[in-house]
Amino acid sequence: MALSEFALIARYLVHVGAAREDVLLGVGDDAALVRPAPGRPQALALDTLVADVHFPADAAAADVGHKALAVNLSDLAAMGATPQWALLALTLPKVDEPWLEGFAAGFGALATAHGVALVGGDVTRGPLTVSVQVIGCLAGPALRRDGARPGDRVWLSGRPGEAAAGLAAWQSGAGEDRRWARLLRRLHRPTPRVALGQALAGVASAAIDVSDGVAADAGHIAAASGVGIELRADWLPLSRRLRAWAGDRAAVDLALNGGDDYELCFTAPAAADSALGSLAAAQSLPLTPIGRVTEGAGLRVRDARGRELAGGGYQHFGGGA
Amino acid sequence: MALSEFALIARYLVHVGAAREDVLLGVGDDAALVRPAPGRPQALALDTLVADVHFPADAAAADVGHKALAVNLSDLAAMGATPQWALLALTLPKVDEPWLEGFAAGFGALATAHGVALVGGDVTRGPLTVSVQVIGCLAGPALRRDGARPGDRVWLSGRPGEAAAGLAAWQSGAGEDRRWARLLRRLHRPTPRVALGQALAGVASAAIDVSDGVAADAGHIAAASGVGIELRADWLPLSRRLRAWAGDRAAVDLALNGGDDYELCFTAPAAADSALGSLAAAQSLPLTPIGRVTEGAGLRVRDARGRELAGGGYQHFGGGA
Repeated sequence: MALSEFALIARYLVHVGAAREDVLLGVGDDAALVRPAPGRPQALALDTLVADVHFPADAAAADVGHKALAVNLSDLAAMGATPQWALLALTLPKVDEPWLEGFAAGFGALATAHGVALVGGDVTRGPLTVSVQVIGCLAGPALRRDGARPGDRVWLSGRPGEAAAGLAAWQSGAGEDRRWARLLRRLHRPTPRVALGQALAGVASAAIDVSDGVAADAGHIAAASGVGIELRADWLPLSRRLRAWAGDRAAVDLALNGGDDYELCFTAPAAADSALGSLAAAQSLPLTPIGRVTEGAGLRVRDARGRELAGGGYQHFGGGA
Repeated sequence: MALSEFALIARYLVHVGAAREDVLLGVGDDAALVRPAPGRPQALALDTLVADVHFPADAAAADVGHKALAVNLSDLAAMGATPQWALLALTLPKVDEPWLEGFAAGFGALATAHGVALVGGDVTRGPLTVSVQVIGCLAGPALRRDGARPGDRVWLSGRPGEAAAGLAAWQSGAGEDRRWARLLRRLHRPTPRVALGQALAGVASAAIDVSDGVAADAGHIAAASGVGIELRADWLPLSRRLRAWAGDRAAVDLALNGGDDYELCFTAPAAADSALGSLAAAQSLPLTPIGRVTEGAGLRVRDARGRELAGGGYQHFGGGA
């Protein structure tokens, strides 16, 4: 029997995520009521995932729930903010209770892990689309895109290109092969670098999360900061698994131009090197210098011999898909 | 030439709505940064409009922009909150600059009128869907759904049923007829009752905005408050234009069960009658008693002779569309 919209919301969204004392009124009224952290600026982010654009329509519901929240937490991470609350706009072609249950489980597990309460939702009928809005607060200075200065190093967390390789593996039908399970997991279950972003506040000069590809996103820092950025292709921390899937040459291309990594790309003065080394150890997360900030404008990528490579990144309209 | 996603966002969304001093960083970084009003709870709402579900896909872009924000401001109005900031998730099948320009104009005019800044946005490719998230702050007590008490009167702002009649006129091809222009305007350009909601804080015992129909939404107050509600069909403030379009009998049905009015339905003790009379005069907005809160549970609608009518309201899944 089909449930009404209201019963759906009540059943699947009311108790998703963490319980927080600063939530005065959660899902179920015209709006949620929350108490902001006194004296702290808030960071507001919103990202939409569309079926067959941002995830395969037949992806596991729990993966879609995880990813829809993860990409938003990643935006807060890139500002150095602490996540507090989320709202969910879910558009579904039909009532599918097992799908909803899986979605809520994936979304809820990640929300709970990050202390996030789902405080509001809207469930509508239409083509499968998930839009999530998250709110966090800043404890220290914000990590903006516009603070990179010539002489800074460019850093990257984690191992780029694995999510893009996972997508290629999925599309080629190799998704069942256990050798590529980690690549697929990186695609479907990205890890938002929330603790890293918080630790980088006051250390990094600029930051962005890598959703469009390292090259494109580093380019966004360059444009916002009014500087140039030069990346070194041979410094990219490529994983063995990525090389095994793609070969050395394509691995570099996936790392530079593949999207969906949700790692943090950031800049910092050389004086921060040792602090970043300690931070990488403390968080058990590789932090790798991948280039430098220069005078001028634009993004260049050079190989070990200094030759310039072509760059670019994923875009929803225009050049890319 | 197709523009990239980033250029689209920059061109159409950067300066939409009011300029506000509490916006520290607007569209263009990973997240927006805002400064919450000190000591005040926040109201968070989110609503999605899907093409051909919530608006005709060929509706004027400015109307879609207006309505997408209006339905969200209406949610804040129903809490008694003062709107501050909005975020926009816009999914578009293709780049259509005149459409985007019209959308931004409709959205922006309403945002400016209510002092709302658009601080963040995400533009994605896919089936036409508009999801808006708004944040406001409370100056006084919140207008919740759960405060109605037996003996309270049930009130309604404005004239119900006109938006539903507008939809029927549009669907029947009578949309060009100037006699029905006001009905269509009520459908495409709803007026969020923000000032009314603020004035009702501390006066009304419960409130909701009418999106699903007066009967369904009054029923939500009854359910949340653990009371019964009895509406009087013959007390509904039907407009002449609605009666002219629908006839007297169908007008009552549209008023009770038609959605998209975005008026406020609220309850208040009889002691508030004179305050509400003054408020109606001050805001030049009809406020009409349409029923009463009873012991028990559920919603009943009676006619002038006390006979019970069948009720119901629009739902996205299940019984309705």
